[in-house]
Amino acid sequence: MYDIIIIGGGMAGMTSALYAKRNNKSVLVLEKESVGGQIAKSPKVENYPSLKEISGTELSDMVFEQILALDVKFELENVLKVTKENNIFTIVTDYNTYQSKAVIVANGAKPRMLNLKNEKNLIGNGIYYCAICDGPFFSGKEVTLIGDGNSALQYALMLASYCTKVNLITLFDKFFGEKQLIEQVKSNKKIEISHNLKAVELIGNNSLEAVIFEKPNGEKVTHFTNALFVAIGQVPENEIFKNLAEIDSFGYFVADETCKTKTDGLFVAGDTRTKQIRQVTTAISDGAVCGTSACKYVDTLKD
Amino acid sequence: MYDIIIIGGGMAGMTSALYAKRNNKSVLVLEKESVGGQIAKSPKVENYPSLKEISGTELSDMVFEQILALDVKFELENVLKVTKENNIFTIVTDYNTYQSKAVIVANGAKPRMLNLKNEKNLIGNGIYYCAICDGPFFSGKEVTLIGDGNSALQYALMLASYCTKVNLITLFDKFFGEKQLIEQVKSNKKIEISHNLKAVELIGNNSLEAVIFEKPNGEKVTHFTNALFVAIGQVPENEIFKNLAEIDSFGYFVADETCKTKTDGLFVAGDTRTKQIRQVTTAISDGAVCGTSACKYVDTLKD
Repeated sequence: MYDIIIIGGGMAGMTSALYAKRNNKSVLVLEKESVGGQIAKSPKVENYPSLKEISGTELSDMVFEQILALDVKFELENVLKVTKENNIFTIVTDYNTYQSKAVIVANGAKPRMLNLKNEKNLIGNGIYYCAICDGPFFSGKEVTLIGDGNSALQYALMLASYCTKVNLITLFDKFFGEKQLIEQVKSNKKIEISHNLKAVELIGNNSLEAVIFEKPNGEKVTHFTNALFVAIGQVPENEIFKNLAEIDSFGYFVADETCKTKTDGLFVAGDTRTKQIRQVTTAISDGAVCGTSACKYVDTLKD
Repeated sequence: MYDIIIIGGGMAGMTSALYAKRNNKSVLVLEKESVGGQIAKSPKVENYPSLKEISGTELSDMVFEQILALDVKFELENVLKVTKENNIFTIVTDYNTYQSKAVIVANGAKPRMLNLKNEKNLIGNGIYYCAICDGPFFSGKEVTLIGDGNSALQYALMLASYCTKVNLITLFDKFFGEKQLIEQVKSNKKIEISHNLKAVELIGNNSLEAVIFEKPNGEKVTHFTNALFVAIGQVPENEIFKNLAEIDSFGYFVADETCKTKTDGLFVAGDTRTKQIRQVTTAISDGAVCGTSACKYVDTLKD
């Protein structure tokens, strides 16, 4: 029996572990893929306060070492089922069954990909999913952006404020965002909008050179760019928790900054919950809140 | 005219500047005392994700260098008055008058001190104001804690989970916190409660050796300790903003994790606003949110 089991070994989960373990609780982190979560895939991080320039992998490795030094248990296992009975959580993974008094879900959300051949290889070398993180590297340059929702619109405006030109490309014939944002994008002279284009191929071996789009009539267009931002949504994976916590129509846990759910002892941290800005900074804030709140909850049970 | 003026050069303010400047806005930070705010006074920080052990001064200096490298303007001036007219904020300091399109208030909150002679000299050497930050350094040892509210009660329980003994001392004859917390504290065998004691003197030159308390009848008691935690509240200083933002009865800005106030373009970040846990991690999260939100707001004005 652990005091606290944390599902997800990204920045939110590891920070939860840091706070919980420093408060003397027994802590197990379960991560299904690799240490660090989304940030570990970011080639260059310049907006983490204190570290001027670092790779996402280095950043997450530093936190990983920090929690291992505290003797946090870390297992690479995929959580399949979580239930709660008599104040005890049971967590079934692909290898084991664990029990704990509290659970912190920090399983993140993945940027939705275009699902094109070669896409994974080009991440960080021409393909980017976070304009807040990677946009500033293209200050004074021309970029291309695929997406039609609020995030894409906001990214377009942001990129336009320091890039020479933003080619904004949508799959359908319109945007699906706030009117005000759409109007701002349309009236921004640096943003050139192209509708009805479907990305079908990425050209480039070590770095992106061009994207091939297909028009509704089947005609293909080659668009040369070495900076393609993809903002077509994120994908949280919270199905298995639907009996324990409220989940919104996009799959995110519905929770405010207290990170609480309808189930006592179940907390949610980081990108996996409803929030305004998904950044390392906001994820580790949730980690601090969840780590501390889970400890307080466990202390209550002891009495 | 600046795009964004940030009031307060602690971790929340500097992170706001980092995000705003990376989005190509002109940014001025006004700090009235010294770089780094509260954390700069913490001798050892072990819970900042990525930096295993660092002094608070080193941590804040790293962030300071990071924003100076981005060409953020930083002035040591005390803000006396802020007004807004025709979408322009006017900020009057003790030396200058500035204008900006958006303002981020990140002026922090100070732990309330005992106001005893020698107290300032002993900070970090026997006197501590944050048990979450500094408590773990006394794992396996005996500590003393002054306070009677929820924070003090929570600190007592937390400290009791890894200290051998917690001497909890209150000024009056009772606690002013949640019943449940009070009961937990009272039933915890590691916590020894003493009421009606007023700290009147701190003994020790380079490090704390003892505290002298006074009973209601004037009798003095010497209590030997080298770890005194003081949890008698915090003091935000938000009076000058009362026309622009809602302030609660303790002086904090009333704001949720969006960091918005009733005044468009005025955001509040870090310890100065209502929040559950005041930590560097939660402060920099607010900084990221405010920096990004203020940029979006400024972009709206441009249209």
